Amino acid sequence: MESFLETRRRDVEIAIEACGVCGSDVHTLTGGWGQAKFPVCVGHEVIGKVVAIGPETTTVYVGDRVGVGALVWACLDCKVCKSGNENYCPHQFDTYSCYYPDKSMAYGGYANHIRAHEYFVFAIPESLDSSLTAPMIGGLGHFGILFAAALGAEVYAISHSPNKEADAKALGAKGFICTNNGGWNEPWRNNFDFILNATDATDRFDMAAYFSLLTVNGTFHTVGISDKDHIGSREEVQEMLRLAAKLDIKSWVETIDISEEGCKTAVEKVYNGDVRYRVTLAGYDKVFGNRE
Amino acid sequence: MESFLETRRRDVEIAIEACGVCGSDVHTLTGGWGQAKFPVCVGHEVIGKVVAIGPETTTVYVGDRVGVGALVWACLDCKVCKSGNENYCPHQFDTYSCYYPDKSMAYGGYANHIRAHEYFVFAIPESLDSSLTAPMIGGLGHFGILFAAALGAEVYAISHSPNKEADAKALGAKGFICTNNGGWNEPWRNNFDFILNATDATDRFDMAAYFSLLTVNGTFHTVGISDKDHIGSREEVQEMLRLAAKLDIKSWVETIDISEEGCKTAVEKVYNGDVRYRVTLAGYDKVFGNRE
Repeated sequence: MESFLETRRRDVEIAIEACGVCGSDVHTLTGGWGQAKFPVCVGHEVIGKVVAIGPETTTVYVGDRVGVGALVWACLDCKVCKSGNENYCPHQFDTYSCYYPDKSMAYGGYANHIRAHEYFVFAIPESLDSSLTAPMIGGLGHFGILFAAALGAEVYAISHSPNKEADAKALGAKGFICTNNGGWNEPWRNNFDFILNATDATDRFDMAAYFSLLTVNGTFHTVGISDKDHIGSREEVQEMLRLAAKLDIKSWVETIDISEEGCKTAVEKVYNGDVRYRVTLAGYDKVFGNRE
Repeated sequence: MESFLETRRRDVEIAIEACGVCGSDVHTLTGGWGQAKFPVCVGHEVIGKVVAIGPETTTVYVGDRVGVGALVWACLDCKVCKSGNENYCPHQFDTYSCYYPDKSMAYGGYANHIRAHEYFVFAIPESLDSSLTAPMIGGLGHFGILFAAALGAEVYAISHSPNKEADAKALGAKGFICTNNGGWNEPWRNNFDFILNATDATDRFDMAAYFSLLTVNGTFHTVGISDKDHIGSREEVQEMLRLAAKLDIKSWVETIDISEEGCKTAVEKVYNGDVRYRVTLAGYDKVFGNRE
């Protein structure tokens, strides 16, 4: 394996134009995942323009519009990386709150620029809007309905909150199942081929009831629990972005201009669950100027 | 759905010639799965000759050598059955310790004859020996190594007992991993595409250690835990038997002639774990005569 510093010859410098505000940003800031390594600059749903590339970069060029997610480095040399699952590399570095081996700190997307190894820099299809697309790089929740419905699945949203029914249907769900009442699962036994669990905990619901909804050999797929499962592989993220462009998927996003006050407002809204369904920090040029 | 009695027009009557002795027979007799419905006649790994067929039977003929597993009836009409998963039918009847809707009792294979709906009667390939094959219909454990190795997999046996290494290798395992020491899993992290768990409990081992052995997106498949997952579907059992014939798979079986004493000896050997690796009751003709 080449030295860490050698790999930095494939780094890409990006002038940020949009950054999604994710629940994991909030977890980090509140210490929900343990004390953050301050100073911290969160943000791992980044889209911007490439302004410089390292001398060994081959896949990205100055002027490209690109994305960065929750990972900025992995060894690309171990068995896990070589199987195309670099997002599980035991040597990986997160986009923020993480020290590189040379003791420099990785900082996220609530900032003017970000730098990442080109392997962790995604091409953004031309038709996609930066503010709507940034949250897709790290987002769960309402994206599950948007993508599944756009792909032609017959989607039922399952929620403890009856208030979400109208939104779920507007997002593309055919039906809505409310888990408020005992026995809510009974009419749906043996009914679903696939359940996507996007909650951030399983201790508040009855796994057996959810499992009873599955057809034999059906799949219960949990994406929301662990910090470790924080992004797909490069291949998966690029495929997701291609699909978003092909199927013309539009996130439900509120934009807030980046600033000290804007970051505070955005993080507080996410903390309070007062978002339908994502916030993107935008207006970077207004604060940081044209950085080309 | 036709009435239960109507479905009995597809029943098949079999003169038994071999019956595997399964751990679940012992569980039933000891009350490990709750009080058995006495009188009980256990045995759900049955092979014998067809001696009579119901008037609507179309797939089995008198004189055929056939097998019966842990199920003798399902509705074949519900969504689960129609998806080819009749072994999960909510209306199914077990081979023994179970009352049919007409209040008659289902009895298993420690007996001269057994009767089952033709859908639950399997064709036995000609090259397979009855005593060696009966335990395959319900067996786990050493069959996992035999089949996986015969199919060309690189198999490692995992056991807490170092004494099993020689047998595991003789059965076809390339390697053997002993779980006696803390950290036993460390050298094998990220190493296996598939783990088959044939133990009858998970409370005695550290799931996290086992999961750490899997490659990303690897599969941990548990077959030994629940009474409910007691047999494959018809299609799966027939495929298994075809494979056993094609790959010339030979179980490790001790045979004991059926008799009051023979049944007692066989059940006690299984109860005490004193078996390498299966017991089959045989010699039915000596006790019951030629029943053709």
